[in-house]
Amino acid sequence: MKVAVVGYGYWGPNLVRNFSWLEGVDVKYVCDLDRSRLDKVSSLFPNVSITTTEYQQILDDPEVDAIAIATPVNSHFQLSEAALQAGKHLLIEKPMTDTVESANRLVELAKEKDRVLMVDHTFLYTGAVRKIKELVDAGKIGEIYYFDSVRVNLGLFQNDVNVIWDLAPHDLSIMTYVIDKKPVSVSAVGVSHVKDGLENIAYLTVFYEDTTFAHFHMNWLSPIKVRQIMIGGSKKMVVYNDMENTEKIKVYDSGVETKPGSKDELYQTLVQYRTGDMYAPKLDQTEALRTECRHFIDCIVKGIRPISDGEFGVQIVKMLAAAQASIEQQGKKIRLDSL
Amino acid sequence: MKVAVVGYGYWGPNLVRNFSWLEGVDVKYVCDLDRSRLDKVSSLFPNVSITTTEYQQILDDPEVDAIAIATPVNSHFQLSEAALQAGKHLLIEKPMTDTVESANRLVELAKEKDRVLMVDHTFLYTGAVRKIKELVDAGKIGEIYYFDSVRVNLGLFQNDVNVIWDLAPHDLSIMTYVIDKKPVSVSAVGVSHVKDGLENIAYLTVFYEDTTFAHFHMNWLSPIKVRQIMIGGSKKMVVYNDMENTEKIKVYDSGVETKPGSKDELYQTLVQYRTGDMYAPKLDQTEALRTECRHFIDCIVKGIRPISDGEFGVQIVKMLAAAQASIEQQGKKIRLDSL
Amino acid sequence: MKVAVVGYGYWGPNLVRNFSWLEGVDVKYVCDLDRSRLDKVSSLFPNVSITTTEYQQILDDPEVDAIAIATPVNSHFQLSEAALQAGKHLLIEKPMTDTVESANRLVELAKEKDRVLMVDHTFLYTGAVRKIKELVDAGKIGEIYYFDSVRVNLGLFQNDVNVIWDLAPHDLSIMTYVIDKKPVSVSAVGVSHVKDGLENIAYLTVFYEDTTFAHFHMNWLSPIKVRQIMIGGSKKMVVYNDMENTEKIKVYDSGVETKPGSKDELYQTLVQYRTGDMYAPKLDQTEALRTECRHFIDCIVKGIRPISDGEFGVQIVKMLAAAQASIEQQGKKIRLDSL
Amino acid sequence: MKVAVVGYGYWGPNLVRNFSWLEGVDVKYVCDLDRSRLDKVSSLFPNVSITTTEYQQILDDPEVDAIAIATPVNSHFQLSEAALQAGKHLLIEKPMTDTVESANRLVELAKEKDRVLMVDHTFLYTGAVRKIKELVDAGKIGEIYYFDSVRVNLGLFQNDVNVIWDLAPHDLSIMTYVIDKKPVSVSAVGVSHVKDGLENIAYLTVFYEDTTFAHFHMNWLSPIKVRQIMIGGSKKMVVYNDMENTEKIKVYDSGVETKPGSKDELYQTLVQYRTGDMYAPKLDQTEALRTECRHFIDCIVKGIRPISDGEFGVQIVKMLAAAQASIEQQGKKIRLDSL
Repeated sequence: MKVAVVGYGYWGPNLVRNFSWLEGVDVKYVCDLDRSRLDKVSSLFPNVSITTTEYQQILDDPEVDAIAIATPVNSHFQLSEAALQAGKHLLIEKPMTDTVESANRLVELAKEKDRVLMVDHTFLYTGAVRKIKELVDAGKIGEIYYFDSVRVNLGLFQNDVNVIWDLAPHDLSIMTYVIDKKPVSVSAVGVSHVKDGLENIAYLTVFYEDTTFAHFHMNWLSPIKVRQIMIGGSKKMVVYNDMENTEKIKVYDSGVETKPGSKDELYQTLVQYRTGDMYAPKLDQTEALRTECRHFIDCIVKGIRPISDGEFGVQIVKMLAAAQASIEQQGKKIRLDSL
Repeated sequence: MKVAVVGYGYWGPNLVRNFSWLEGVDVKYVCDLDRSRLDKVSSLFPNVSITTTEYQQILDDPEVDAIAIATPVNSHFQLSEAALQAGKHLLIEKPMTDTVESANRLVELAKEKDRVLMVDHTFLYTGAVRKIKELVDAGKIGEIYYFDSVRVNLGLFQNDVNVIWDLAPHDLSIMTYVIDKKPVSVSAVGVSHVKDGLENIAYLTVFYEDTTFAHFHMNWLSPIKVRQIMIGGSKKMVVYNDMENTEKIKVYDSGVETKPGSKDELYQTLVQYRTGDMYAPKLDQTEALRTECRHFIDCIVKGIRPISDGEFGVQIVKMLAAAQASIEQQGKKIRLDSL
Repeated sequence: MKVAVVGYGYWGPNLVRNFSWLEGVDVKYVCDLDRSRLDKVSSLFPNVSITTTEYQQILDDPEVDAIAIATPVNSHFQLSEAALQAGKHLLIEKPMTDTVESANRLVELAKEKDRVLMVDHTFLYTGAVRKIKELVDAGKIGEIYYFDSVRVNLGLFQNDVNVIWDLAPHDLSIMTYVIDKKPVSVSAVGVSHVKDGLENIAYLTVFYEDTTFAHFHMNWLSPIKVRQIMIGGSKKMVVYNDMENTEKIKVYDSGVETKPGSKDELYQTLVQYRTGDMYAPKLDQTEALRTECRHFIDCIVKGIRPISDGEFGVQIVKMLAAAQASIEQQGKKIRLDSL
Repeated sequence: MKVAVVGYGYWGPNLVRNFSWLEGVDVKYVCDLDRSRLDKVSSLFPNVSITTTEYQQILDDPEVDAIAIATPVNSHFQLSEAALQAGKHLLIEKPMTDTVESANRLVELAKEKDRVLMVDHTFLYTGAVRKIKELVDAGKIGEIYYFDSVRVNLGLFQNDVNVIWDLAPHDLSIMTYVIDKKPVSVSAVGVSHVKDGLENIAYLTVFYEDTTFAHFHMNWLSPIKVRQIMIGGSKKMVVYNDMENTEKIKVYDSGVETKPGSKDELYQTLVQYRTGDMYAPKLDQTEALRTECRHFIDCIVKGIRPISDGEFGVQIVKMLAAAQASIEQQGKKIRLDSL
């Protein structure tokens, strides 16, 4: 199996490193427009055969089975379309593309060409998220009431994407993976503190058909780094604090059981409280990207469907696009099926 | 100075205790409809002269200078109006009333009768909030960019008020006190997980004329207790964690300085980062309610205007009412001047 | 059942309050040499019949069944001896007395007079310590390897007792309760930073016959407050952090399993590591002193033996006395059976 | 400047990496007895000219200016002596050697040969420790009363050194660097929970001529990882928590001021308390080993004396040897000038 990694900026080296570790996988190419970046490849990864600034060279090489794309998001569609047209399997850095249309187009094309199309939503492959998914699927959490995410820090202000496109793909992918229901609409508010700049703080809400709902706080202007997700269920509640070195996941045997109550009485409690033990399950420590790269190769070899496949990627792009539209309409609720 | 405390549920005993400690102040009456509650007064506060279920008795007593009302919110207006009509100075538990109209009516009446009207927004009198106010007023924080508040825990589901009316008055009062700008509009989303119940999770956003904005997360269904406010300014940033025993306030000498940048370059940084020392100022440990009760008496004696006066209370009620209206209109932005 | 509380300083009011709450128990007397302290009793506890500065009055009153002593430690023996001689059941504030001899004498006297003699080691009655005891007794922790305690804060420098006599009784009592083995010897070091003063920082080690051992750090001069006990066992390990509001007890399914290894190989691992889940059991939130006072009354009524009986109290005093002797001999190991 | 790194186990790669980054420095050799380790050098560090299992080859190469030794401690003396004899400058991994005699011998030899002899006490070069040193030297902390260190985790049981020789060099080096006084004696206790094994838990105390003293807790059998040093001074107190991502150093404006008091009065406070602001200074984030390697090269080039020179290394070895002797004599205080 021969792989090419396209884009050697922040994330590219991680892809090269993890694909290099996999047995039976060769990283034949690393491609980037910036020659100075490529110069670093040979010393760090002497196993990489060829570095090139010419993407076409990779497309033309029949030995290349799969391409991993880690370039800025506005180039994803063009590079991906060409890769699928050339018959390559594809792993695209998240977010998949910058429009719903182009994301959908890639899904169709992958079907047409019968190629694996996977989006690099790395968080799904962490020990922590896999554990949450396992708990939810086993019915331990019960019905999910809410999903609340905070991802804030003093971050790099970017000028090609706003804070939602930068940070929300992580949390939206976790939500989509964990909650087995269809989101219906999205609203978002955000502001920029840079003149004519993109939003650097934003809040996003995702609504479902029932009362389940999800909320996201994204902020490049926070003095402290917070990476926390709370999931409230009818049976148990989960707090996932990614800043903890150990005990990232805490499962609380706490909750409420509601029962009918008269509205006439003041301060009457309608619910029964339950607080019990908390436990922090042991998590698989394998690097998420390693698990993911192996999954990508497995999907190609065994013909299975990736966890974060093209359709999954489309859902995330839809919510991002809806959030964008909502901000522009002052927080108006945008139906996802309208996109 | 003779004071009466009306309502002896959760908060009433704290009012009695704190007024009892003040020199020159007598708690002449404690009033509650529930006789069994009054029975506890005499053993705990032998200094209280009279306990009564008859509010009129207090109104009729010319010796009573001031009344503190700590009853459920739907009774605030009626009790307050009568008190002001009877010429008493008034301290009302927050939120002031349950409608903007009634809150405004009390402000007018207090003016008419030349009585002190104060709303019991206790948080304003904590050492922590007073320190934040002091820092902001001294220009140490710079221009305030955002105010983010999280107030969540496994809380009592109430059936006369939703989670916004229960929890938001705290944080809205802090925001109003600290940010010396006029909020323009409010949007909010919330859900109830109890059939036909009131919202138990809600998110609220307050918009200002400029890019300043504030966000609030309120939740009765969280497995962990969080009470945290972040304030981002152009010069410094503040994190106020009320769950810390010490070091409740942390001031970060961190921030960004923005400067014009070209949008053509990808990933170009438009901002300059600054991270410096953090410090946690020593805070006054006096019980907030004690400081507040003293302030109330001072306002009466010296004829000064309370920090949390009637107008202040009206602003909070306006935002609560706007939030309510917004939830009912699916998160629509509600202008405060429309109320 | 009629009870008298002797000593109304820091701890006395807690005893009065908790005994007052117990059904079938009357606090007939509160006694203190300081009249001004007694003046506060009547307003706070109108249920107390008599306040007195005359201890003899209590001894002479045949109605009094039991006496609780909460005076400075140097008066414990004299007051206790008189109480037992007068046929009263006895609860003594920890440490029991200031010498091993006097503590032993009280045990003998209580036996002779057939009275209940209990020492107020309150920590044993907390939900946290009871849970640890339960886990240990159920064999969940396995063999206990070590017990490490840190109890430090910016504390009141006292001039009748040093930091060991002030703070160590808490942790020594927990150790004695939890570890079902006989300690053999004690060593301690400590210094005073006040000229001619008593030690304000000390470290104490308790040795057992096998390799189990316990260590204690006590410090009145720490900028932060730490109250933490770690217990390492062959099966599981426990961390008890008393500064946590919730999750005070964490049980780690971590440990090592040792097996023979050759010493010839460098860096060879002799042990197998195991890290698994952590869990924080729900704890009983009842106030410890309430549980303890009820236990004291139960022991009198039902003729059962107190958990923290006289013999228990003697063991603690022995270790304190040994620690004192060790400090004076520069950390020399002092055998407990030599005292 | 040409450097050779000897020993390519856990620490060696870090030395190679950091020396490789320094301008004007070539890592000419990497030496290890294990050929399989050397095989990894070329791919990771293609800049390294020669890998060898023959130490003599390095000694014989006149181009090699300096040798860094990162082998197990029992080989330090032999390798170091040969290096100095061959006229090479020397950086030895801590602890310097395993006996006081051999450490002293190296100091003499370095003087004789006029070579730089430096011990790799990396912690001294961290931003955190440099900041503490700066505060102490500027008189901000005042007179140092105590130094308390806890360094515990579930660690690798080693069978060539016990937990003291493994962990204490870090904290003893920080203490020695920060406290500008001469330690006088050492006592230590420790136990092994492995049959015939080396101590895996130990407590160590260092005494000074005055009342300053230092205490160290080292433990390979702790379920949680703690890396914390508290330094109490007459003016301020410092808590250095190395497990914090940010705010590793907290400086507390807290303390006590002692004054004469009568011993006759019970519970009389002899001291005045002061609690003020806390602040967490910004720390230099440069990798400590990088700073250290640069310092080593500077010392060679400019003829200056290393912060952690041979004499410094000897002091640490002396305390380790004294601790060992103390454990064998059941915690007896061992004078350092007796070694």
